[in-house]
Amino acid sequence: MKTFKKGEQITEGKAKIMYTTDDPEVLWVHSKDQATALNGKKKVAIANKGYYTNHISSLLFNYLNGQGVPTHFISLESDTDVVVKRLKMIPLEVVVRNFASGHFVTRFAVKNMMKLDPPVQEFYYKSDELDDPMINNSQILALKIVDEDQIKFIQAQALKINEDLKALFNRIKIDLVDIKFEFGITSDGQLILGDELSPDNMRLVDQATGKSLDKDVFRKETGNLIDGYAVVLNRLKQELGE
Amino acid sequence: MKTFKKGEQITEGKAKIMYTTDDPEVLWVHSKDQATALNGKKKVAIANKGYYTNHISSLLFNYLNGQGVPTHFISLESDTDVVVKRLKMIPLEVVVRNFASGHFVTRFAVKNMMKLDPPVQEFYYKSDELDDPMINNSQILALKIVDEDQIKFIQAQALKINEDLKALFNRIKIDLVDIKFEFGITSDGQLILGDELSPDNMRLVDQATGKSLDKDVFRKETGNLIDGYAVVLNRLKQELGE
Repeated sequence: MKTFKKGEQITEGKAKIMYTTDDPEVLWVHSKDQATALNGKKKVAIANKGYYTNHISSLLFNYLNGQGVPTHFISLESDTDVVVKRLKMIPLEVVVRNFASGHFVTRFAVKNMMKLDPPVQEFYYKSDELDDPMINNSQILALKIVDEDQIKFIQAQALKINEDLKALFNRIKIDLVDIKFEFGITSDGQLILGDELSPDNMRLVDQATGKSLDKDVFRKETGNLIDGYAVVLNRLKQELGE
Repeated sequence: MKTFKKGEQITEGKAKIMYTTDDPEVLWVHSKDQATALNGKKKVAIANKGYYTNHISSLLFNYLNGQGVPTHFISLESDTDVVVKRLKMIPLEVVVRNFASGHFVTRFAVKNMMKLDPPVQEFYYKSDELDDPMINNSQILALKIVDEDQIKFIQAQALKINEDLKALFNRIKIDLVDIKFEFGITSDGQLILGDELSPDNMRLVDQATGKSLDKDVFRKETGNLIDGYAVVLNRLKQELGE
């Protein structure tokens, strides 16, 4: 397997630092020991968080690559580092919901954990100044964020990946409540899944205990976030035999 | 033509009072001399407003009926009263935008009056308590408000009616900036356009002067709302030969 050499820092985000590598089409991503919520207004250092998000995300991306889903993930480089394909990110968050929770519950006054079948799919326009407003397909076209074929591809991919991950989590007795994806375009024009796949970006509930195993524990301050992340990582490792 | 006898009052809304008639499938609607904005938080009595909204709405519904668009409108009964088919209203506001204005401008930080071509189409979930949140197709299906065929029919009808009215207003030198529709279902299951079609529910701009001829004048307190409504009514009367 090809190896990559970490280069210069490009950007530092809320939970990650990006570096160049010796391959111009490949980035080195370091996961920080930091939790944020409310668009970064709430920010706390949490020991070992980078370890857990990095390992969980790598296992999930590896799994998806194995299912034939094109993603940016190349390989795990250390406990807190991966290398990924460089993407031009599309400024949309793609949310898929299998159960009502969070925003969806407050927005429409429905029962928490109401089953959504078929799943609900939403787009949010990524903009810190605008507070990531929900955006519909017609508005996406008007703002020329992507074209109609790209919207359809992203929606279909998001729903397929949600089904793949829902089935995987079900095997380890965890409900995938909802999940956020971000897509981007490679230098040769391929539209693929990017970003991270960890309990920072999805809601996970233990089927036996009903306990949150995701960032809601941090958002709502109901316990130690790392405990849930460790449960998720251990069960995934066991299931995927790694 | 069949005539109808006004019966008992059923409901009183922000701008209208509904009555039964001697036909159980027909309602009598009286337009009040009242302007409201901000979901009814701002409310002022305005002399003759009912006259103008009632006459403008009747002309526009008559015009659409003539274009083969199925609507609830039956006939004008007086300067402030019409009779319409009784509908079971669908709790959605359907907005079509030809130019960016209002919410769309603040939501996405785009230029006021930016041309939107093709037009943008949005749904809002009608709920005073929830402040009429924007809702996408997938969320509409999850809340079982209407089914997929009904969503497609409403979207296609709203875009067609917008084109019809945009062309009509263009002939009288007015830009149709955006418009809000509400649809409902007749007792025999037909999905048709209901509500009112007046400058209370659409933004209209005089092509020569750039002046607002709609409720924005009231929302923003930039002049006398009735002056604009009178311009719209007079030009429509002249164009439609009534």
